Amino acid sequence: MRRGLGSAATEFQRRVMRLYIGLVHYPVYNKNFQTIASAITTLDVHDIARLARTFDVKLFFVITPLEDQQCLARRIYRHWTVGFGAEYNRHRKEAIELVRVVPSLDKAMLAIGDKEGKAPLVIATAASRQERNRSISCEEARCMIEDDLPVLLIFGTAWGLERALIDTADYVLEPIRGRGSYNHLSVRAAVAIILDRLAGR
Amino acid sequence: MRRGLGSAATEFQRRVMRLYIGLVHYPVYNKNFQTIASAITTLDVHDIARLARTFDVKLFFVITPLEDQQCLARRIYRHWTVGFGAEYNRHRKEAIELVRVVPSLDKAMLAIGDKEGKAPLVIATAASRQERNRSISCEEARCMIEDDLPVLLIFGTAWGLERALIDTADYVLEPIRGRGSYNHLSVRAAVAIILDRLAGR
Repeated sequence: MRRGLGSAATEFQRRVMRLYIGLVHYPVYNKNFQTIASAITTLDVHDIARLARTFDVKLFFVITPLEDQQCLARRIYRHWTVGFGAEYNRHRKEAIELVRVVPSLDKAMLAIGDKEGKAPLVIATAASRQERNRSISCEEARCMIEDDLPVLLIFGTAWGLERALIDTADYVLEPIRGRGSYNHLSVRAAVAIILDRLAGR
Repeated sequence: MRRGLGSAATEFQRRVMRLYIGLVHYPVYNKNFQTIASAITTLDVHDIARLARTFDVKLFFVITPLEDQQCLARRIYRHWTVGFGAEYNRHRKEAIELVRVVPSLDKAMLAIGDKEGKAPLVIATAASRQERNRSISCEEARCMIEDDLPVLLIFGTAWGLERALIDTADYVLEPIRGRGSYNHLSVRAAVAIILDRLAGR
């Protein structure tokens, strides 16, 4: 029995995923549903990088067109991968090493295309339900990921991904629903729950 | 079919839970496994309160014996429930309203006992596997919660709950495992994943 479980666990770990995630800072909405470029939250980068490492995500794209924000993200990267932080906390290094700073979703897709030899399927996430024909469940998304397709899962900061960007995605993941109608999780919490559902054991 | 699903969803929402969570700032370990009282991270309070509201948690206890830290937590509470924040963002208000600041785990248990008429089962969480006889799976914990028992789920900040505190819990939840051996999630991410597994749909 124990041996059987052990083999199943090993089999699970061996199953190769080609899962990528992107944290989009533009175009996203602000509180008044105006399109903005949001500022990077340092903690988002840390929390999501640690989640990415936990769930065997290949790369974590921090997407922002703002040059000062790109500099900030690269400074975080250097601090934890080659600077003081790399010595101080090697677990953080292992996580932050997955970060790539790019100016746009297109650039993230190109980088994945270069690495994988084909463009990824893009699955957008949203807190509210989108039109039914592109909406997929977590189970469906999990099948795509386990089917050895390169998949890029994108998350919006601030008040969420701009509608026009969602429209360019191949699919939109069903929103996370809790036990009632409250629907206001942080993006960090949403990434945690979605990665556990799509790539957890 | 749709109607059937709708009824199941309604049934799910009606099922009453008596789930409480506690974020412990003392006694926890620092990086060198010395017992400390950690500082409150404002963002933990926000993220975890929003998760608590999402998953229908009854109260979220912020546990710290340090008076200045209790003041900080109460200031956050006031700002978002009766101060400027209450007007600015009512969704945040609905979440932060679940926060209770208490000096110890015992005080949290007493508060639950007063409210529920019986002491809660305490389930500790830990990043590493504990001795087998008190370890329970997420499925087992979910059953206890759905069995109408008051349950207090406790999470450690910093490098995790002190061993002596874990020993006082009734059960210890199995650690979250990702796809490999990396095991260094933020407490915010751990709360997100565990609440989704124990109380999500």
